[in-house]
Amino acid sequence: MMENVQFHNDGLIPAIVQDVRTGEVLMLAYMNNEALKKTVETGESHFFSRSRQELWHKGATSGNRQVVKRISVDCDRDAILLEVEPIGPACHTGKTSCFYTPLYGEGRSIRNVVHEIADEIKDRKEN
Amino acid sequence: MMENVQFHNDGLIPAIVQDVRTGEVLMLAYMNNEALKKTVETGESHFFSRSRQELWHKGATSGNRQVVKRISVDCDRDAILLEVEPIGPACHTGKTSCFYTPLYGEGRSIRNVVHEIADEIKDRKEN
Repeated sequence: MMENVQFHNDGLIPAIVQDVRTGEVLMLAYMNNEALKKTVETGESHFFSRSRQELWHKGATSGNRQVVKRISVDCDRDAILLEVEPIGPACHTGKTSCFYTPLYGEGRSIRNVVHEIADEIKDRKEN
Repeated sequence: MMENVQFHNDGLIPAIVQDVRTGEVLMLAYMNNEALKKTVETGESHFFSRSRQELWHKGATSGNRQVVKRISVDCDRDAILLEVEPIGPACHTGKTSCFYTPLYGEGRSIRNVVHEIADEIKDRKEN
């Protein structure tokens, strides 16, 4: 598998993380060879933390792990897409997605609002 | 707006492109300051081509332009998400998305298959 992936000069490849149920883009992180291997072996997202310069098992501390359902590589093999079932929010701020700050255009997508309302209803029913 | 975005050392920021209607992740490309400015000014995706080292108006040649509906930045401001209405396929191979090569997990997502079937039906009706 690793021979199908083109790591950049710094040994990393960007990995887009998407919620497989809702389609929401959750975060962008980076993987090195080891992180990709661990992700495939364990079925949970592993990245390379650029700030800590170490392997990062997403959610190991917070519990907000991501169960990886599918990995795809793009046409020039230098970016990957992870479709995951998130166990909790992707963002360290507690938000579902890291992309919560609008730069341009109108507010949030209807698609995401619908999913959040559905989650909220489910949550109220259960709790 | 530009002060809200953290370009990397090479002057670029990764930009995830997502179909605003279907949620499908279409491609990952890079923007410099100028590309982001042009995108906002024109409402169409502009990137920085790393291979050609120049500003790249997506679809200028192929016609497969992307109308940008929304741009968001992530929590550490070093990645952006573009939600677009694509006028044609994102990939130079003619595929809807560049992420068509599976590395791990089962085939394609039901979500995307449903959207492609809907497009196919619409296309047959119209042509």
